[in-house]
Amino acid sequence: MSDAREKAVPHLSPEEFRRLGHRMVDWIADYWARVESFPVRAAVAPGEVAAKLPAHAPEEGLEGAEGWEAIFRDLEDVVLPGLTHWQSPSFFAYFPSNTSGPAVLGELLSAGLGVQGMLWSTSPAATEMETRVLDWLAGLLGLPAAFQSGSGTGGGVIQGTASEAVLVALVAARERARRALGREAEWVAYTSTQTHSSVLKAAMLAGVANGAQDGVHLRQIDTDGGYALRPDLLEKAVREDLAAGRQPFFVCASLGTTSSGAMDPVRAVGEVWERTGVRASGGWLHVDAAWAGSALLCPEYAALREGLEVADSFAFNPHKWLLTNFDCDAFYTRDRKALIDALSVTPEYLRNAASASGAVIDYRDWQVPLGRRFRALKLWFVLRHYGARGLRTYVREHIRLAERFAAWVEEDARFELAVPRSLSLVCFRLEPRPGEAPGDTDTRNRLLLERLNASGQAFLSHTVLPGVDGAPARYVLRLAIGAVRTEERHVRAVWERLVALAGE
Amino acid sequence: MSDAREKAVPHLSPEEFRRLGHRMVDWIADYWARVESFPVRAAVAPGEVAAKLPAHAPEEGLEGAEGWEAIFRDLEDVVLPGLTHWQSPSFFAYFPSNTSGPAVLGELLSAGLGVQGMLWSTSPAATEMETRVLDWLAGLLGLPAAFQSGSGTGGGVIQGTASEAVLVALVAARERARRALGREAEWVAYTSTQTHSSVLKAAMLAGVANGAQDGVHLRQIDTDGGYALRPDLLEKAVREDLAAGRQPFFVCASLGTTSSGAMDPVRAVGEVWERTGVRASGGWLHVDAAWAGSALLCPEYAALREGLEVADSFAFNPHKWLLTNFDCDAFYTRDRKALIDALSVTPEYLRNAASASGAVIDYRDWQVPLGRRFRALKLWFVLRHYGARGLRTYVREHIRLAERFAAWVEEDARFELAVPRSLSLVCFRLEPRPGEAPGDTDTRNRLLLERLNASGQAFLSHTVLPGVDGAPARYVLRLAIGAVRTEERHVRAVWERLVALAGE
Repeated sequence: MSDAREKAVPHLSPEEFRRLGHRMVDWIADYWARVESFPVRAAVAPGEVAAKLPAHAPEEGLEGAEGWEAIFRDLEDVVLPGLTHWQSPSFFAYFPSNTSGPAVLGELLSAGLGVQGMLWSTSPAATEMETRVLDWLAGLLGLPAAFQSGSGTGGGVIQGTASEAVLVALVAARERARRALGREAEWVAYTSTQTHSSVLKAAMLAGVANGAQDGVHLRQIDTDGGYALRPDLLEKAVREDLAAGRQPFFVCASLGTTSSGAMDPVRAVGEVWERTGVRASGGWLHVDAAWAGSALLCPEYAALREGLEVADSFAFNPHKWLLTNFDCDAFYTRDRKALIDALSVTPEYLRNAASASGAVIDYRDWQVPLGRRFRALKLWFVLRHYGARGLRTYVREHIRLAERFAAWVEEDARFELAVPRSLSLVCFRLEPRPGEAPGDTDTRNRLLLERLNASGQAFLSHTVLPGVDGAPARYVLRLAIGAVRTEERHVRAVWERLVALAGE
Repeated sequence: MSDAREKAVPHLSPEEFRRLGHRMVDWIADYWARVESFPVRAAVAPGEVAAKLPAHAPEEGLEGAEGWEAIFRDLEDVVLPGLTHWQSPSFFAYFPSNTSGPAVLGELLSAGLGVQGMLWSTSPAATEMETRVLDWLAGLLGLPAAFQSGSGTGGGVIQGTASEAVLVALVAARERARRALGREAEWVAYTSTQTHSSVLKAAMLAGVANGAQDGVHLRQIDTDGGYALRPDLLEKAVREDLAAGRQPFFVCASLGTTSSGAMDPVRAVGEVWERTGVRASGGWLHVDAAWAGSALLCPEYAALREGLEVADSFAFNPHKWLLTNFDCDAFYTRDRKALIDALSVTPEYLRNAASASGAVIDYRDWQVPLGRRFRALKLWFVLRHYGARGLRTYVREHIRLAERFAAWVEEDARFELAVPRSLSLVCFRLEPRPGEAPGDTDTRNRLLLERLNASGQAFLSHTVLPGVDGAPARYVLRLAIGAVRTEERHVRAVWERLVALAGE
């Protein structure tokens, strides 16, 4: 190796980057075209992928684009067999994690530009486009005007995930309540037993709950027969805490719980907040609509919007069901000052004239980290490419497919719906046989799911729904429709497979 | 519009995606080639970018790839003028935010695959490659074996940013201390007055500090003449807190402070922890080397490693100075159980056989959010493409350029170094004129910086360094070398410009 070569940093030349970039784009296009051919759930054992990777980093690099042949080989031999294919049209587990051509182009561009949007001044376009695009989305979803930037006191920001959104809301709530009370207090937060694990995790991070024990200062309120939070029990808990000198400050209502797609009664929760005087002492109502929020695009689901006018914040994930790749959570608040009060720390090296003028938004004060990339690009591409009409068509088609599946379940005597279908989520199970012990029904369902998933032809996940009115808990299968390429034939195929397995 | 068209979701066809993808890759290659031609700092006024964007989302989409002409036009007319060009070779502000061809290809692939790595089982390759690649990096940096996965008790994980790393460390520390003590306590965390704002923000999020007032339970310890934390003052504060019945549980030492690149004495901090008995009660020592960590690649900086063997966690950002685009923070701990104890919440819908077996890592328990993308791909590409030798060459060249700049400053009678150069960071200023009031020196420096930045030819940022031994605080300019395309000619050009402006 020549001395010059040894001293030069071996960057890709522009031509090499173009060639490899085109090839990677093609590789992705081909992957999407052949994703149906892979087992949906990865079939590797622990350690199998790691065993194919060298123990140490290479001392020498790849010596230009030719060296990348080895990487493209490894994508086939090491990476692909170790993936669970979330982009498969037969992926029905958890909630979907979307990606799409326009979104990928936006992520690519954001990585290439490599700018920081932590302050308005560190790249004004990153901030102003984000504000605008989130206003667009708020308009499409019909969110209250108070959540839009034009209100002057509220607005939207892109968080990584709904987990970060609820953490930020909870921390802003505590600071607002502390200022309203003018003192520290024994803080209490509330949510339902069916809420997403991220709410408990946020409370643990914030020091409101201790470790994984709930109930310390995060109360998980029981739900009704449809697994929605019971406002009467919330009110009882709030009054008990107040009577004991503790201070309620935060409640998280869910629109579309992960287990069963239940919708908490947001307006009734707000009324509890009002009646008990918690709102007057700064109490915060956050609405987590991570998955279901996208349905608000369609006027026929306007009922989901009920009560949002009394919410302090609202979050949903375009990365779940709106064609935008992870991560992208749209978070709205009516009280942006509360966020800034709770999260702003300004050392000298971040001071600048624009921030000091008060005329701009610095999104670093609306989120956990300091740094942030140009987050709005991919959402801007998705909204422009599909248009509102295209997005509504997308969401409606998934709901239509879920309706079909739910109808098949209801028509088949061996199966039953565990709860009524919620948007594009169907919770179902093999019906108990006459006289069958509940544990045995669960076991049959568990086996059915494991056989289906082991076949590689589709991937579903499960949950356990608590018993209502003294009934035992139920192990149920969840079919979440929302993968970008899912068509009716895929839904029909998984149903036929389930029927065949049930017959065995 | 036909009925069929109205009912179809207008996805890009595979051919359209290829065409647009190639074009976006080319656009990025061209951007990198012409980035020098733009003013480094954006020259737009607040609202200027927003005014070019429609007030509402489009009802109709782009009708295929042709419609994207409008987007590419907007990239030129709306986006580019609103950017501060972090990839410009004349960007010397803050710390750099790197990107590179191999990293962009990795981010692109991660977006295209669209898999979730929250659990091992949701895509085993995402987890196992991350563990392996972080072990590679730990080896290259010479981190203690306890931080590597082979230890069985420690290991690495990719966080978004150093902010999230310190939050996770602080929360794990509190939970570990709580378990060690067997009770709640009045928790106290420590860091230096020169530490990054993210440490105070983490303490606020966690409820250890209240609002933006420091000193509540986060003690910011004074620094020595080189702006490094003074262990004697740390020890005094710890002993006072213990005597008052409060419980020290967390200290963050910085390797390379943001203001001046100061290096806290990690070993001495560990000795305070030991001597005061804080370590025995679970106390945690985190080392934030967000920027400077990359220098550990080079054996000549091995001294920076001193004391890491007594640290509980260590974090640095490949997105700062290791050619990997934002976000990418490499976080290591010797006590992964503490993370899991503090962050794990397992609802039924996430239970699975692999997790239950204990044979796998579920990275969701090592971080704030639940979801995570395939984060390791871009780091894998960067490490393979450049090789250890290429990366060392890269870091050394930036340090060499900083040495040159520092020498020019020292040789010029009008300028002075504010502190000795730290790696690739030079803090300097116009020297005070005989008898000049300190405020006037500051003003001349402020004007110099503003004129330089307004010229668009380069972008530097500033800080204020506190006075030592009764001296007044000083406004200083920071030249941080670390943009991917910076060459000696760019450093020479900014120096010549500074000299010219100083002469005016």
